[in-house]
Amino acid sequence: MSAPIRGYVFDAYGTLFDVHSVVEAGRDITNDPLTLSATWRQKQLEYTWLRSLMGRYEDFWAVTESALRYAVRRLELTATEAQIERLMSAYLTLACFPEVTAALARLRDRPCAILSNGAPAMLEAAVRSSGLRGALHHVLSVDTVKVFKPSPLVYALGAEAMGAAADELLFVSSNAWDVAGAKAFGYQVAWCNRSGAPAEELGARADYVVDTLEQLPR
Amino acid sequence: MSAPIRGYVFDAYGTLFDVHSVVEAGRDITNDPLTLSATWRQKQLEYTWLRSLMGRYEDFWAVTESALRYAVRRLELTATEAQIERLMSAYLTLACFPEVTAALARLRDRPCAILSNGAPAMLEAAVRSSGLRGALHHVLSVDTVKVFKPSPLVYALGAEAMGAAADELLFVSSNAWDVAGAKAFGYQVAWCNRSGAPAEELGARADYVVDTLEQLPR
Repeated sequence: MSAPIRGYVFDAYGTLFDVHSVVEAGRDITNDPLTLSATWRQKQLEYTWLRSLMGRYEDFWAVTESALRYAVRRLELTATEAQIERLMSAYLTLACFPEVTAALARLRDRPCAILSNGAPAMLEAAVRSSGLRGALHHVLSVDTVKVFKPSPLVYALGAEAMGAAADELLFVSSNAWDVAGAKAFGYQVAWCNRSGAPAEELGARADYVVDTLEQLPR
Repeated sequence: MSAPIRGYVFDAYGTLFDVHSVVEAGRDITNDPLTLSATWRQKQLEYTWLRSLMGRYEDFWAVTESALRYAVRRLELTATEAQIERLMSAYLTLACFPEVTAALARLRDRPCAILSNGAPAMLEAAVRSSGLRGALHHVLSVDTVKVFKPSPLVYALGAEAMGAAADELLFVSSNAWDVAGAKAFGYQVAWCNRSGAPAEELGARADYVVDTLEQLPR
């Protein structure tokens, strides 16, 4: 039987913030922005994992730009520095998914936090552009510990800031591997499976699987 | 100016051992074994990175089987336990690439080692089936340190076994991210770019780029 939920810890990109505008920005340099966006995103994640394991942390802004440059080269596209800058800036003006504002309002008798790979300035900009500031008690970046998810050092930041044990908190992510990482650390976990993705085979399953954040348990 | 090369440390899968037979084994359950193989390989690598970061090491045999089960589910295929077993067993009967035996013979005035993610029994089987036993002074598995590449703990195993500093050794891999990891650790590094892949944007470049192992510097 699970402990009562004393607070909520949210992943940011893809969970609260819709990165669709990143795809749109890609139309600037390719007719197939979905492939660019998917290649960019996959490499962005790989670089967070590889740099963490190598002990060569660079913040998420730097990693995201490196991944973009790789994706452009890999897909044999060309992009000017101004175009690279425009693509990157899409990360600074994100909207939240349509249900997020109401879903967070519904949970407001408990504290809510973001715990994200994002660099502090990126998170700051996205929280501002999405209008979520008032709904969040903490905006936590991995930059504090200089290693990316799914390191336990990252997940510890959420419990510490909330002043609660991980198993008294509900961690919420749309990324199946992030779900596994948070569950392995000890959170109660909800997987917001927006894309209908298969679960990972990492030996740790979500306690709840929801389609949108409106369905989160209170 | 580089130090003289006192020995060679080779990655195994894709560098010495041809994993083509893994693709062939996939014909058993799909008309598109290349997609199965690519999905399986990508997830196999992801799980090595994720489990290392989570501090939840399982050996490469277990990770490889988990990745296969994920790939089957992701591609909406079905596989019996016997078929899973047959696919897995492809890893135990690998051949080396055509040039490998002659290339290692050419380097035999210096010690050669394997340093691989592979579990000891997997490496043992592949060394036997490929006929490379006599050319190798050491067969080193990450299983000793219970973390996968590109952790520096792994790369340290090669220098330790060879009794040389990393910058006196040539590390050889076909995987661009492994090249970056070994270079960041301090090896001289040759990237055997068999597939014509783009370099990674990880801030560490190979000292040599070759198409086959026949072109390695002595």
